[in-house]
Amino acid sequence: MFFASDNSSPVAPEVLAALGHANEGYAMPYGNDAIMERVRARIRDLFEAPEAAVYLVATGTAANSLSLAIFTPPWGSVYCHRNAHIEEDECGAPEFFIGGGKLVLIDGEHARMTPEGLETAIDFTARAGVHNMQKGMLSLTNATENGTIYRPADVARLTTIAKAHGLPSHMDGARFANAIASAGCTPAEMTWKAGIDVLSFGGTKNGLMGVEAVVIFDPAKAWEFELRRKRGGHLFSKHRYLSAQMDAYLTDDLWLRLARQANAAAQRLSEGILRVPGARLVHPTEANAVFAAWPREGHRRAEAAGAAYYLWPGNQSLEGDATTPIAARLVCSWSTTDADVDHFLDLIAG
Amino acid sequence: MFFASDNSSPVAPEVLAALGHANEGYAMPYGNDAIMERVRARIRDLFEAPEAAVYLVATGTAANSLSLAIFTPPWGSVYCHRNAHIEEDECGAPEFFIGGGKLVLIDGEHARMTPEGLETAIDFTARAGVHNMQKGMLSLTNATENGTIYRPADVARLTTIAKAHGLPSHMDGARFANAIASAGCTPAEMTWKAGIDVLSFGGTKNGLMGVEAVVIFDPAKAWEFELRRKRGGHLFSKHRYLSAQMDAYLTDDLWLRLARQANAAAQRLSEGILRVPGARLVHPTEANAVFAAWPREGHRRAEAAGAAYYLWPGNQSLEGDATTPIAARLVCSWSTTDADVDHFLDLIAG
Amino acid sequence: MFFASDNSSPVAPEVLAALGHANEGYAMPYGNDAIMERVRARIRDLFEAPEAAVYLVATGTAANSLSLAIFTPPWGSVYCHRNAHIEEDECGAPEFFIGGGKLVLIDGEHARMTPEGLETAIDFTARAGVHNMQKGMLSLTNATENGTIYRPADVARLTTIAKAHGLPSHMDGARFANAIASAGCTPAEMTWKAGIDVLSFGGTKNGLMGVEAVVIFDPAKAWEFELRRKRGGHLFSKHRYLSAQMDAYLTDDLWLRLARQANAAAQRLSEGILRVPGARLVHPTEANAVFAAWPREGHRRAEAAGAAYYLWPGNQSLEGDATTPIAARLVCSWSTTDADVDHFLDLIAG
Amino acid sequence: MFFASDNSSPVAPEVLAALGHANEGYAMPYGNDAIMERVRARIRDLFEAPEAAVYLVATGTAANSLSLAIFTPPWGSVYCHRNAHIEEDECGAPEFFIGGGKLVLIDGEHARMTPEGLETAIDFTARAGVHNMQKGMLSLTNATENGTIYRPADVARLTTIAKAHGLPSHMDGARFANAIASAGCTPAEMTWKAGIDVLSFGGTKNGLMGVEAVVIFDPAKAWEFELRRKRGGHLFSKHRYLSAQMDAYLTDDLWLRLARQANAAAQRLSEGILRVPGARLVHPTEANAVFAAWPREGHRRAEAAGAAYYLWPGNQSLEGDATTPIAARLVCSWSTTDADVDHFLDLIAG
Repeated sequence: MFFASDNSSPVAPEVLAALGHANEGYAMPYGNDAIMERVRARIRDLFEAPEAAVYLVATGTAANSLSLAIFTPPWGSVYCHRNAHIEEDECGAPEFFIGGGKLVLIDGEHARMTPEGLETAIDFTARAGVHNMQKGMLSLTNATENGTIYRPADVARLTTIAKAHGLPSHMDGARFANAIASAGCTPAEMTWKAGIDVLSFGGTKNGLMGVEAVVIFDPAKAWEFELRRKRGGHLFSKHRYLSAQMDAYLTDDLWLRLARQANAAAQRLSEGILRVPGARLVHPTEANAVFAAWPREGHRRAEAAGAAYYLWPGNQSLEGDATTPIAARLVCSWSTTDADVDHFLDLIAG
Repeated sequence: MFFASDNSSPVAPEVLAALGHANEGYAMPYGNDAIMERVRARIRDLFEAPEAAVYLVATGTAANSLSLAIFTPPWGSVYCHRNAHIEEDECGAPEFFIGGGKLVLIDGEHARMTPEGLETAIDFTARAGVHNMQKGMLSLTNATENGTIYRPADVARLTTIAKAHGLPSHMDGARFANAIASAGCTPAEMTWKAGIDVLSFGGTKNGLMGVEAVVIFDPAKAWEFELRRKRGGHLFSKHRYLSAQMDAYLTDDLWLRLARQANAAAQRLSEGILRVPGARLVHPTEANAVFAAWPREGHRRAEAAGAAYYLWPGNQSLEGDATTPIAARLVCSWSTTDADVDHFLDLIAG
Repeated sequence: MFFASDNSSPVAPEVLAALGHANEGYAMPYGNDAIMERVRARIRDLFEAPEAAVYLVATGTAANSLSLAIFTPPWGSVYCHRNAHIEEDECGAPEFFIGGGKLVLIDGEHARMTPEGLETAIDFTARAGVHNMQKGMLSLTNATENGTIYRPADVARLTTIAKAHGLPSHMDGARFANAIASAGCTPAEMTWKAGIDVLSFGGTKNGLMGVEAVVIFDPAKAWEFELRRKRGGHLFSKHRYLSAQMDAYLTDDLWLRLARQANAAAQRLSEGILRVPGARLVHPTEANAVFAAWPREGHRRAEAAGAAYYLWPGNQSLEGDATTPIAARLVCSWSTTDADVDHFLDLIAG
Repeated sequence: MFFASDNSSPVAPEVLAALGHANEGYAMPYGNDAIMERVRARIRDLFEAPEAAVYLVATGTAANSLSLAIFTPPWGSVYCHRNAHIEEDECGAPEFFIGGGKLVLIDGEHARMTPEGLETAIDFTARAGVHNMQKGMLSLTNATENGTIYRPADVARLTTIAKAHGLPSHMDGARFANAIASAGCTPAEMTWKAGIDVLSFGGTKNGLMGVEAVVIFDPAKAWEFELRRKRGGHLFSKHRYLSAQMDAYLTDDLWLRLARQANAAAQRLSEGILRVPGARLVHPTEANAVFAAWPREGHRRAEAAGAAYYLWPGNQSLEGDATTPIAARLVCSWSTTDADVDHFLDLIAG
């Protein structure tokens, strides 16, 4: 009953096996290994983007920060949701890699920014002369920090506003697979066809050890990315072990299968919670995370049984009236089992 | 016959096995995993440094840059050898992480800086008022870029000069294990007992996939390291897989056994080359790399047979007089076999 | 009838004369001139702060950015009002000098942040582990961007919150003289006695050519300030000409007299506007700027007569119904005359 | 008898008068003043460069750092002489503004880099893959730190090497006027006709209070310069006072007349020193600085009489044998008089 985070789940067995297979003899370092050749081709196929530049790094923060840095000058504004991972969970990494920059925070329910909010924010910087931070780029998280998703039409609506101001768009896809599994669209439809210029295509939260692909749809920025990656300490000498993980991820749609399992577990959990008297969803369950509230006594039973998850927001308490609903975040991963979910549901239902 | 770099060798089987064992169930992320607890304790034991702060990152460039950044202000000078990895092979990563900084280059044969050179360089910055870059810190690479080592007394001689000016000292130990295997001293003798304040303790070139420990002997800088690591995108969520590699590395002295194998291979290679008529060493063979020159015809035969290594410097040519000695760098790793070495020696001997 | 900005007014005659007097023979460069010695002593006297470190720079952006940079690490948060000059008018200079940093924006009427807003904002970052931007420092603008002031008790209320979290406080005093003239307190009461650690003491908007003093009440950060100033290109070789301006500013309370003139002009203007039927103040007039709205026809007459000022916000139009009140910002300086004010009032009254 | 530095001399009377004239009424801030319009036109005329972007800043460090930053990426190398002001006297300002960068130091007698040295240095970085700092730009100081000059043909020889590698070229002209006065060529011949892309055109050391023009011959980088200037805190609100100084400087060739006076004084001084028995020049006297050695007893007499100048290098002593020649740097300015020079010569001749 571990719902604290998908980043605590193990590595998929196919991925571990691939590491073993990659461990034969010598391999060229720094991304010049043969497996990376295959990965590059596969990602280009998957995204229907034969020109895309494809790179691997080991953390989501690196993928996001480097992606933003190649498109945003030090005096540029990054338009993101107020709760975006790049704003709240990266200790200023975007600003570090950009060499300045300013994250302009946009509101919107369920961690989805509104087109109006984006328009207003860009207008504000667009009016600017030399005294103000300048326009920069859009960054969307998909699936969002609240377990919702942007569908391709939602993405396009926002990137269209950005492009009307000449601005590129980034997608933080730490949970991109979950968003695709939920939307039922193709990766191309969710990204470049909807106006995305660069994607952090996450693997770590979805069955890999620590690999994220950065897909740059217009390769003009490729060499700058390589320099920034190296300079940031994110170029792996024994790169084949990143390549092998991503290669396994792309084989037989493993990435999508794992995400579907995680999403299905979240759906099962979400539906089960709603059957608990007094329970409600805080955010719609559209990917692999459930944000819901249910009576405090249910939390107490779950906690006593060792279930791991976060009260959300964190300043709530299990002390107090037994029937008051308390909100929580529950994240499922590819390794969440129906048994886990059902056991948890039994506990909170009492 | 692969002598191009130790970073192209595979992962030791013990390490791969450890990754499999670590892949059970859920684990706390971001270095809060149980294996990391053990790693921390083991490194403190190994270095006889019960207070040391211990962190893992995935690349040598990250380990070095973060280590320098916690001790050097943006206006500080880093004193290093002209051929140091931090100067020649990190695309400015130290300057990026330091937020400025200046690498002050010191000469010395066989990639070992001379005490006189260090003294002069520090004096130059120490005289400075506000117009000049200020004093910063010392950085030594051990084993060096030329396959030589600093022994503890050499290290102490240099750190003593640094400390006389109030400066801390860093050791880039990407090949620390090879240096220890060669010097026959303890890790403590080579580091804090010789005046080192922070060590990049390399694993990647010596049998790991991509793990370097940073050992900070005075833990006062620990929290700043954590912030810089996160901000640099170098904090792993699924940290247990870094921990597991390092744990295996520390088990039954694997780190030292692998380094001894590599050093022994280099010694065998070095001695064999010297038996070739017209051959000579460019640098003494003290760790796992051989820098030697031998007649061009021997290079031609090796190349024709598929041997991989670099002419060093790179601007030499295999075209021309057959007997002219041409210099090369040959790097051995834990996986270099006697058969490989002997086959190579047969080829160059003709 | 120039009310566009106080930064467009001329230099006070006393200041110009002082430049002439300073222009005799040779003077030691870089702040080692004799006049700077006197300036330092005078500022320490004025602020009753015998230990304070005192430096001169030529722009308010430099004064603010350097002041913030010596107290805020690259991962630190600067708590400021949403409309602060450091947020809206410095093109990211604080982030540039800090080497990162994040400005956390706090609301509050009339450009004064509320204690509640500050408390909430600090709490948010204070909860943080390594994933979040860390606590940094407080920055207040006084007089504010809306022509209001913080009184010493207001300042103390906010710095007390900051200090409860261990945070230092900065005052952007580009219009410090106007705030003092308005509050009727001493400089010490407005600053260190109210918890301020570093002050940008502005002169440029108040009769100097381009000089701002930075007053660091605890001199422990003095040397770092000197290094950052030099490194930022803000150390003047012919420093005596900065010194001379500031020296004249401090002589016979010129700084305060000029500010009183500017404030009095604004008061006269404000009261006059309120006599216009349909007019109202947008913000209270507490220093040298008037934020008011009056019927559009009055604006049209003023514009036709060549009056210079900004509609505020800027997206309003002089086209349309003649009686609709339109808001504007009018800034007075030491050189604003009663005749100017009265002429303007005649125009808008019709 | 003040020869310590030209930055300690007073402001030319024409310049002071111009400040008075500029001090009338209101003026648009931030470089939008009418005087700046004239300055821009005059500099374009002077340099025969009708498209050039022209900006004013207040310090040479700002002029240089901003000029380098618009042409050098954070991973770029700046090729400069080992004794360049940007290397030795700016506390890392170039690296701060570039956001990294590395100064690659080139040798050459009399502070003039050799073409061979430049070629070798560029070749070294040009070979580079992603692991190394990349190519960046050339920076020449003219007149040099040793009081010598590059003639247009010398400049062209170096910029031709740079351009063969696709690199732009900067000239640090803190003493540009002295170089022009010495070379007898036009400003255009010394700059863009000889391959220079951006010039720091110094005024501060030659009779201004603190103004340097940056002349960017290809205006494509103009907007980025404006943003970096603002962000660096170097955009003056009361810009007219910078404009007025530069305007006076350009009127009736004041800049050139002042430089000729300084150069003539240095020539008189140099020739006089050579008449002292045992004296010799350390560097040729080509601009306004004299580097010469003469017997220690002459130094003692000069010092006793209050002459101000630096022993160069600084580690020499006036203690010891009376006849041993001791080297010194003597800098003349527009305000150095023949009487000063002759008095000094009398002293050292004994």
